[in-house]
Amino acid sequence: MPYIEKTMKSERIYDGKILNLRVDTVELPDKKYSKREIVEHPGAVAIVAINQDNEMVVIRQYRKAIDKVLLEIPAGKLELNEEPIESAKRELKEETGFTAEKIEYLTEFYTSPGFSNEKVYLFLAQGLTPGNQELEIGEHIDVECFKLDELIKMIKFGDIVDSKTIVGIMYYYELINK
Amino acid sequence: MPYIEKTMKSERIYDGKILNLRVDTVELPDKKYSKREIVEHPGAVAIVAINQDNEMVVIRQYRKAIDKVLLEIPAGKLELNEEPIESAKRELKEETGFTAEKIEYLTEFYTSPGFSNEKVYLFLAQGLTPGNQELEIGEHIDVECFKLDELIKMIKFGDIVDSKTIVGIMYYYELINK
Repeated sequence: MPYIEKTMKSERIYDGKILNLRVDTVELPDKKYSKREIVEHPGAVAIVAINQDNEMVVIRQYRKAIDKVLLEIPAGKLELNEEPIESAKRELKEETGFTAEKIEYLTEFYTSPGFSNEKVYLFLAQGLTPGNQELEIGEHIDVECFKLDELIKMIKFGDIVDSKTIVGIMYYYELINK
Repeated sequence: MPYIEKTMKSERIYDGKILNLRVDTVELPDKKYSKREIVEHPGAVAIVAINQDNEMVVIRQYRKAIDKVLLEIPAGKLELNEEPIESAKRELKEETGFTAEKIEYLTEFYTSPGFSNEKVYLFLAQGLTPGNQELEIGEHIDVECFKLDELIKMIKFGDIVDSKTIVGIMYYYELINK
């Protein structure tokens, strides 16, 4: 019989703008009870966008949670009832200004399954046309392009420390080198 | 001047067993205010453990947040004042039973910097000696070993969907194929 944890009680702690928090009381297979703190997230998309020079488009963005500017691939959370592929097109345009002739699904993964249901859908965007960013007021995102070999080195040297970005770069690297 | 968000107010919502939640009110560069929902996490370790047959040790574990069993590399959160390398040795032993002759730091990364400060320290463990798991009561973890090529395929086929595990496998794959 597969191991599962039956929910005996679920307490809602917080309902927010980008996440909710609940605490589930679960019954373990040995019939003992335990607590599970769970961050509910709507899910997100991330985009490996390749320009005409065969470079990948990345962004520099301040992250309040760690009080640092990170180098990341374009990404953003799913809006209500939004299909991941539409979200990917929208986020690519908003954050980088690029529109893509071709956009295709690569894979999906959970960022922190120990405490959150956040799932990231990864897309590959090609045939890019530049345009203006569509940032929210007060939002600031720098756009840069790098060769794949440079990005692999930046991962090794610890200059890229965002998990979805590492997955995106390495997944694409493996895809084109298979 | 670098873009930063100044904290004007910080509200503690929840202090829990594995995470805390706070909501910061920040001042943006245009002087407008916004809210940032932040999940505080103690940080974690994850281990690429390679056995005598040159296979990687992975575990199958139920995750309540997504109500699924995932295939992951051994991992766990840092305990108070614990050095990451000590945590890596402890988690490897507890979850898989293996002790490592040699354990070394590979890299570190943030799993969800959009809403959490969770950082994962990745280690490489070699020279493994098998032993008994040290699981908590009610905890259940299956241990398996796979060739690296098989794991790469499992990532491509969507059988491995945990971000730290994808990073661990691909980082090690790149390391030994450089």
